[in-house]
Order: sequence, then C-alpha cells, then structure tokens
Amino acid sequence: MVLSHVQDGTRDGDAAAAVLIVYAHPHPGRSIANRLLLDAVRDLDGLRVQSLYDLYPDFSIDVEAERRLLEQARLVVWQHPLYWYSVPALLQLWFEEVLGRGWAYGEAQHALAGKDCLWVATTGASADAYTAAGEHGHPFSAFVPPIEQTARFCGMHWLEPLITHGAHAQDARAPRARAADYRARLQRYLDGHG
Amino acid sequence: MVLSHVQDGTRDGDAAAAVLIVYAHPHPGRSIANRLLLDAVRDLDGLRVQSLYDLYPDFSIDVEAERRLLEQARLVVWQHPLYWYSVPALLQLWFEEVLGRGWAYGEAQHALAGKDCLWVATTGASADAYTAAGEHGHPFSAFVPPIEQTARFCGMHWLEPLITHGAHAQDARAPRARAADYRARLQRYLDGHG
Repeated sequence: MVLSHVQDGTRDGDAAAAVLIVYAHPHPGRSIANRLLLDAVRDLDGLRVQSLYDLYPDFSIDVEAERRLLEQARLVVWQHPLYWYSVPALLQLWFEEVLGRGWAYGEAQHALAGKDCLWVATTGASADAYTAAGEHGHPFSAFVPPIEQTARFCGMHWLEPLITHGAHAQDARAPRARAADYRARLQRYLDGHG
Repeated sequence: MVLSHVQDGTRDGDAAAAVLIVYAHPHPGRSIANRLLLDAVRDLDGLRVQSLYDLYPDFSIDVEAERRLLEQARLVVWQHPLYWYSVPALLQLWFEEVLGRGWAYGEAQHALAGKDCLWVATTGASADAYTAAGEHGHPFSAFVPPIEQTARFCGMHWLEPLITHGAHAQDARAPRARAADYRARLQRYLDGHG
C-alpha cells in the first residue's frame, strides 16, 4: 500500500491513507488552536487531511471522492472547532451527503463498519464553563451523544475524544499541550498499537 | 402592529409576525410529516414561515433580513427533520451566521433575550428506537442539549419541544396527531395565553 503525505486542501491524488482527518474549520487561515493541532500531525506517514472549507467553499461536496478516501482509511478523524455545541455546517452537510443510506447504513453496504472514529474538537470556553452552573449549562459530555451516535450508527468504533478547551486563550497553552497528545495518539495508531 | 400572513419561500415583505417559524427541510417538496405540521398552522394570523432551503438553496443566508424578522417575533420556532441527531446543515449555518456575537450574545446586544423558542422536530424512527438498547442508543433527551443550549445561550426561554417520531410511517398517523397539537399551541400563544 502506497501511503500519501498530507494533501490538505487539494483534490489531487487519492492515494490510500490509513488515517483520514476530515477537517472542518470555516476560516482555516484564521485558526490558531486547530492549526496547532493539525501542524503537529500532518507530516505523519499514512495520514491525509481533507480540509472541507478549502475544498468545498461553495458547499458542493464531492461525495464520491470523500467516500473513496473513507473506504481506504482505518481511522476517521473529525476535527473542528465546536460551533453552537455541534459541528460546523459544512461537516453537518458532509454527514448528510457522504454518510448516505445504502452506503454508510441501511439494508445494503455498511462501508464504515469496523473502522475507528476519533473526534478532535476545540472550544473557546474554559472547561469550567461546561457545568450545570457554568456559561454553557451542561457538562461537556452532554454535547457528545449526537456526534458519537453518528459514528456508532455507521458501525464505527468510537475512540476516546480529544477535546481542547480554552482554544481562544492568547498563550495557546491548552492546544499546545493537546497537540503533543494528538501526535502521540496518531503515531501509536499508525504503528499498529492504537 | 400589522401582522402578516405566511410568506413561505419568498423574500418579499418584512411585515412583523409574532411567531416566526424558521423551517429547514432540505427537500421541502418531498416532505410529508413536516408539510402536514406546517399546513396545520400556516394560516394563523401573526405567523410567518421562513423556509430556509427555498430561500437560500445556495447556502447564502441574508443575515440582516433574518435578524429583522427575529427582532419582530415573540416566539421563534425551529422546525425541521432530525438529521444525524441534529439540525440540517442550513439551519446549523443559520445558527452560525444569524446568531452572531455582538447581536445574539456577547458584550453588546442580546437581540433575542426574553423571546420564547419552540423546537419542532420530526424523526423517521419510532420512539422506541430512542433507548439505550434501541437503534439510536440513547433516549431522545440525550440529543436535546445542543439545541436547547443554543436557545438558552441567546437568553431565550425554552418551551417544551414538540417532537414527532415515526414521521416516515405510511399512514402519517403521528404527524397528523401532532399537527393538531401544534396548531393549538401556536393559537394559544397568539391569543396571549401561550
């Protein structure tokens, strides 16, 4: 199997990658935390980044291309900033169009069954905003079920998510610390110990 | 105050409506359950329907127009089929663009504070699919926090949602029953007893 290097933001080449990062930042150029996270892993062999907002700024997703990449991956990563307690709109559209009935679920094929899924999300608020008394009214875990169940409904194994709170802090301390975890986890995975 | 009749799918006229239904069905023409629900209420005086997929098929939302309508409303309804345990992509984009910092939340204005919010969602599965042992792995309440907290973060009052399971059943029994509830609730609201 030929493993590709990162082909972030291009539609060229569909070489197989064991780890596929589906990256959804509405303003990739203005990202700090997500860019730090991505830069920590993008040179790993066997990893590919699909930057949805770079590829599909008009919200016209190439469903077949996305499916081909997914079929080749063992680990699917959904990486994005949390927007209104959920995924950004283009990733929601990707769920709707790419994870279609008859391909990802339903009577016929279950194309993603048995693959692993890692959720990598950043939030602007600090962790203590996610309590019943905090700004966001709930522990962070209250916002996980829609994402987790999307993966599970497609038969994927849900891995322990990698969540970075405080992504807006000037010192970027939290994303820097998480970036090292992220690389270590993906490296272990690619080494076959994930 | 002049109250408008429904102006579903048009951009004409911004007459004030006390009840604003933000309607997000990706295929309005193919909807059965949501159409039944909408048809049950659309002739009420003081109600307006914004059909997002009719208005913005290219995902280019007129943010200022949406905000003007919201400012005039007392009750904001979010009506849509559930897609991957969440709102359809265009409603997610509406959240991101319309409910912006400095307008809906943040240091300055809180344009929606004190308004009421009603969530009207349909699901294809029957209610018993929403259990820990069921097809969707969780009680339906596990999927509510992102939507509810979006409303609450903007200072809106969260009303008891109106959820219709079994929307795909051929006999449309569930949506027909819910349609009567929906009309009664909105009518009471418009009569000032909501």
